[in-house]
Amino acid sequence: MTSHPQARPAPWPRHAVIREVGLRDGLQSLQTIVPTAQKIAWIAAAHAAGQREIEVGSFVPARLLPQLADTAELVAFARTLPGLFVSVLVPNLRGAESAIASGADLMLVPLSASHAHSLANLRKTPDDVVAEVARIRAARDAAGSKTLIEGGVGTAFGCTIQGHVDADEVLRLLQALLDAGADRVSLADTVGYADPRAVRALFERALRIGGERFHCGHFHDTRGLGLANVLAALDTGVTRFDACLAGIGGCPHAPGASGNVASEDLAYMLASVGIDTGVDIDALLALRREVAQMLPGETLHGTLWRAGLPRTFAPAAARAAA
Amino acid sequence: MTSHPQARPAPWPRHAVIREVGLRDGLQSLQTIVPTAQKIAWIAAAHAAGQREIEVGSFVPARLLPQLADTAELVAFARTLPGLFVSVLVPNLRGAESAIASGADLMLVPLSASHAHSLANLRKTPDDVVAEVARIRAARDAAGSKTLIEGGVGTAFGCTIQGHVDADEVLRLLQALLDAGADRVSLADTVGYADPRAVRALFERALRIGGERFHCGHFHDTRGLGLANVLAALDTGVTRFDACLAGIGGCPHAPGASGNVASEDLAYMLASVGIDTGVDIDALLALRREVAQMLPGETLHGTLWRAGLPRTFAPAAARAAA
Repeated sequence: MTSHPQARPAPWPRHAVIREVGLRDGLQSLQTIVPTAQKIAWIAAAHAAGQREIEVGSFVPARLLPQLADTAELVAFARTLPGLFVSVLVPNLRGAESAIASGADLMLVPLSASHAHSLANLRKTPDDVVAEVARIRAARDAAGSKTLIEGGVGTAFGCTIQGHVDADEVLRLLQALLDAGADRVSLADTVGYADPRAVRALFERALRIGGERFHCGHFHDTRGLGLANVLAALDTGVTRFDACLAGIGGCPHAPGASGNVASEDLAYMLASVGIDTGVDIDALLALRREVAQMLPGETLHGTLWRAGLPRTFAPAAARAAA
Repeated sequence: MTSHPQARPAPWPRHAVIREVGLRDGLQSLQTIVPTAQKIAWIAAAHAAGQREIEVGSFVPARLLPQLADTAELVAFARTLPGLFVSVLVPNLRGAESAIASGADLMLVPLSASHAHSLANLRKTPDDVVAEVARIRAARDAAGSKTLIEGGVGTAFGCTIQGHVDADEVLRLLQALLDAGADRVSLADTVGYADPRAVRALFERALRIGGERFHCGHFHDTRGLGLANVLAALDTGVTRFDACLAGIGGCPHAPGASGNVASEDLAYMLASVGIDTGVDIDALLALRREVAQMLPGETLHGTLWRAGLPRTFAPAAARAAA
């Protein structure tokens, strides 16, 4: 049907970054507690496979998330790997102080644009979190630390508890985070409500607010649209994406649902359109098999692992030049 | 990152068609033989859910595909449903004669652009199939039949046997099929090698050759890119897509791999960006549960069924107007 002639979309960018968040967003939603030595092996293998940004854990009380109690050790190890940008999640000033002490390159402060979700998950309003970011910024600067602060606005496309989340409110919070001193902001589809149309619309507005400081999308694959949403985000110019090896993780409010976009599937899609992520996909598939051994009984996700790369597969650089 | 400013892509079309091919492409690759009465219930429920194009079977010898031996009965039933466009697959003139006699609205003649795949699967060269299409067209016209002929070029993005498939050869065959008398042509990613970049490039060229007569993409989800490929195809102006309920089907050369794009996931993605397919997605999810009962022990695919529609989900028309 040519009744809707379309302009040829602009070319895709040449490079993109996949931030591996499997060790944090993935593991925190699983029952299995992976020993520190195995996590270190995971981080080392991810680095060897070409991953250059890894969120290794979260500075939260061990009684809340025993899966992530070894975050300081993981940061210490990850910092020894050349060229690796090491991220952690921090829920508050106390966590930020630990992150600063650890020497992490970046600390992500999550905020829920859904007030209902925010109260249920964080026991704070979104603006309470914005105020905490201002305190974190002051503490960071007072310590002379270079740890970057990323404000991550979650439930940006809707919420399982509250339902609709207003885009204006999402963007107000994005601006508020920047005003409070966040170095970067990102948007997350925490519950898998995003779609390509909403992504294009919201990311375009977010880029107008944040410019270079808005750089990252975090998509779940709860309803199968994860990669399509990434493709839509690429059309807006965003080139950084969170993902979890084997698609682990997901939302505690959607039990059984598939989790984050799978890192290996995302790396494959980006390479297939000529976007280089620096990732060796076969190495990532091998790592997936190792991580599967670390997570007996857990449900893994993703698709590429079943069939492997096409025999005609060429690296991104070769495709872009074709 | 705004270092790659992108033009805003053209708006998506308002309407698209999902042709349900689960009863043919899906069932032919499964071991289970679904009784005719159950297939009839499936077709009736799919029609009730708003599906208006269904490929109900294939006119091939029953000894080759016993799963599809009841195709004539299914066409007869499907023709009683108001507004339903009834398709069948035919491999050759003999099958086409059965299709014409059945009164199907359309017969799809598959052709493999990969010569190696064509010889292995059809025991013919692609040009042998083109010649058969000419004979089918002559027989159709001699019979005074209105059954449309669709030439479907498979392995259009590569082949598990041959590897690379040249786009020029794909487009040559597309033109040859039209010259031989096909009323329509379509392109199929038979083995799951397509990616959004290749889809944009090939579909744009196919539209220049076929215009309104090139109208349909058939994507597998072997490596997770099925919906992303549909999104890329939409950007070129193509608005018709094959899909299988529960994502059944797939390529016999990729055992264990996931199959076709899942109809319910595709309907959801299209609706989410404001493209109306006429499909009631909740009804399709209910039908998926019934079809799962028809296929005990078979591996089903797709993602939406796990979590269901978002509580904020609105029909396509409402979204397009928003």
